[in-house]
Amino acid sequence: MKQYQEMAKEELLKEKESLEAAYKEYQKRDLHLNMARGKPSTEQLDLAMDLLNNVLDERDIIIMSNGLDARNYGGLEGIPEAKQLIASMVGAKPDQVLLHGNSSLNMMYDTVSRAMTHGICGGTPWMKQEGIKFLCPAPGYDRHFAITEHFGIEMITIPMSPEGPDMDMVEKYVNNDPTVKGIWCVPKFSNPQGYVYSDETVRRFANLKPAADDFRIFWDNAYCVHYLYDEVVEIPNIMDLCAKAGNPDIVFEFCSTSKVSFAGGGIAGMVSSRKNIDDALVSMAVQTISHDKINQLRHCVFFENGKKIPEHMKKHAEILRPKFEAVLKALDRDITPVGAGTWVKPLGGYFITFETMDGCAKRTIQLAKEAGVTMTGAGAPFPYHKDPKDSCIRIAPSYPHLDEIVLAADIFTVCVRLATVEKLLEA
Amino acid sequence: MKQYQEMAKEELLKEKESLEAAYKEYQKRDLHLNMARGKPSTEQLDLAMDLLNNVLDERDIIIMSNGLDARNYGGLEGIPEAKQLIASMVGAKPDQVLLHGNSSLNMMYDTVSRAMTHGICGGTPWMKQEGIKFLCPAPGYDRHFAITEHFGIEMITIPMSPEGPDMDMVEKYVNNDPTVKGIWCVPKFSNPQGYVYSDETVRRFANLKPAADDFRIFWDNAYCVHYLYDEVVEIPNIMDLCAKAGNPDIVFEFCSTSKVSFAGGGIAGMVSSRKNIDDALVSMAVQTISHDKINQLRHCVFFENGKKIPEHMKKHAEILRPKFEAVLKALDRDITPVGAGTWVKPLGGYFITFETMDGCAKRTIQLAKEAGVTMTGAGAPFPYHKDPKDSCIRIAPSYPHLDEIVLAADIFTVCVRLATVEKLLEA
Repeated sequence: MKQYQEMAKEELLKEKESLEAAYKEYQKRDLHLNMARGKPSTEQLDLAMDLLNNVLDERDIIIMSNGLDARNYGGLEGIPEAKQLIASMVGAKPDQVLLHGNSSLNMMYDTVSRAMTHGICGGTPWMKQEGIKFLCPAPGYDRHFAITEHFGIEMITIPMSPEGPDMDMVEKYVNNDPTVKGIWCVPKFSNPQGYVYSDETVRRFANLKPAADDFRIFWDNAYCVHYLYDEVVEIPNIMDLCAKAGNPDIVFEFCSTSKVSFAGGGIAGMVSSRKNIDDALVSMAVQTISHDKINQLRHCVFFENGKKIPEHMKKHAEILRPKFEAVLKALDRDITPVGAGTWVKPLGGYFITFETMDGCAKRTIQLAKEAGVTMTGAGAPFPYHKDPKDSCIRIAPSYPHLDEIVLAADIFTVCVRLATVEKLLEA
Repeated sequence: MKQYQEMAKEELLKEKESLEAAYKEYQKRDLHLNMARGKPSTEQLDLAMDLLNNVLDERDIIIMSNGLDARNYGGLEGIPEAKQLIASMVGAKPDQVLLHGNSSLNMMYDTVSRAMTHGICGGTPWMKQEGIKFLCPAPGYDRHFAITEHFGIEMITIPMSPEGPDMDMVEKYVNNDPTVKGIWCVPKFSNPQGYVYSDETVRRFANLKPAADDFRIFWDNAYCVHYLYDEVVEIPNIMDLCAKAGNPDIVFEFCSTSKVSFAGGGIAGMVSSRKNIDDALVSMAVQTISHDKINQLRHCVFFENGKKIPEHMKKHAEILRPKFEAVLKALDRDITPVGAGTWVKPLGGYFITFETMDGCAKRTIQLAKEAGVTMTGAGAPFPYHKDPKDSCIRIAPSYPHLDEIVLAADIFTVCVRLATVEKLLEA
């Protein structure tokens, strides 16, 4: 088949007619499919059912290695065993870990909120500083951008490449502008593109010379152990590189078991320097007496303090891989021949990003919606929901059943093609 | 025996000598007793062990009545069953409940923090208002005062009586001063005095006419079901009274199962108007995707959505009552004959407050510490840790074993008497 860009008007009109016929057939079926959110599927959640039912009725299980009863008050930093678990996921040391509740997002929000009201390590509260900014590599995670937007922090878009954020631009901002206070990063299997930051990118992050003392890298290592294939992808240890570069305090690294055990009942932690952890604890000691140490314990028993996580993640991969491949297969089959978009096959994470021809993302998503396939909202992966080229679509294949994904992907490619043809005919 | 106040100097000197001898005997024993914090004992935690091991392996248990899988993302307000549980504890309606994680303190902190950065229901953020204040009935809960102190909110002490806070003073401040934004209350078995607000006090709270639109009552119903005897003590439903008084939005009521199930792994919630809940959700939707719904579910199964809580609390009472009575017995035996202090026997909650002669609290606590008995720090129940009369001591008998409590109480009364005699000799 001919690439759309090379088709004459008559050919495009004919193609449009045929696509519209296919599209209408799907519309008739009153479907309700959803590829909008990176939620684990029921089958994945079932993998950890023994975590719910592991037996904690022996006193020696309940008493932690530091003598603390997991059921009682105390232990604000988290139980030692769970520090080890989180540390094992990101290659950190247990004493670099500060545990929180069930949500790393909650911890990121609280970290920003704390900086707003109390500043970072003795610095002026961000709410008392004028015109503060965050760098937002985009496409990125919509919930990151929602936090900075909620606190009225100006967001600056940094372009992404398969190597990671544009580091020339990052360095220019961070090293010269003291109003730049942070940057959101998903360094491994980035949300939504599945990119893995290159060694050079990580090294350049560690060697930033921030103009602001209270600048921090928000390093959301959300997919640190979330491979789709046997191929393990490593990124350099940012904490180690920062320490070596004389920047021991510039990183807050976040990690959780939300997509390892249960999305609604995992454990989350932050990896950072002792100075940053002590600073966070000043507020956290006022905020709560302890997070849920029993759930921490439950995870430690089930995952043997982290040892069993890699093996467990292989089971997740077995469920997720066919869903990703179903989408990729449909794209290869329907999009490649007509050149109606591009994508990169991810090796891990929860998303595939589809790049339409400029100006076609919003229309594609609308068409999909009207045929019963909900996609992540257009613009969502960008600060202020503004996709400058209107070309980025986040595909989340994890939650629906495989047969639903197959069907949704078929509909999606029809929508992409139809939107592209419409656009070309406008021109 | 003669009351100390009536003793001549020679009698006091003789008494001092005899007390010092007894005190020194205790010091020799190298004891490590602690009556400082309101922690449940191991025996109490054991009461809920089946909650840890209840079986959640059936799919129909995992799927909530609203169709949500408790294990997955979503359900920010909490599962319907758990709303019912929290509602049942404080006589609220389930739709008045917003759930949080394992800590009501965390929810109070977040509520204040949110008001600081985003204001309440569209009001100006508290951080952008000058000189804001909270009323602090005192003696009160040190962790409440720590929150307002942490955010730099000025604290105004309101005297407590067995009827509750001095309502003339509360009304004068709240109804006239728009910089007064909140008041901390523990209406039932107040921390630390065990007082229960009178019906009239609750009615006057509900009928406040706040000068500030963003004034709220922080109604920490921490001991709502925490009786020491069969005698059930009820307070009027503040939510209902406020609605009747045309003040539907002035209360945030807090409640948790920390001292029902596990201090470190319970569930917590806020009861408030729909308007306040929706306002909180604007920020909470940015802060997290959901709290731990599995732990909510676990509680619902174990407590049958709240029905079994009263019966469960009787088991707590059986463990706590002898400990409280051991302290009261020592006070009756050793303090009453010499008139060295006063106290009120509580019918619930976690504390006994002992009032020394003016100027003797700090010295008593120091003496106790040096004899191996740790008490809550002097001044802790007051804003800025300043007990104006240096007379208030919080006794927390819940955690140690009964025999330890008996011993600690014996030592405590010696310390009280010694400090009192010292004081009288100074004069």
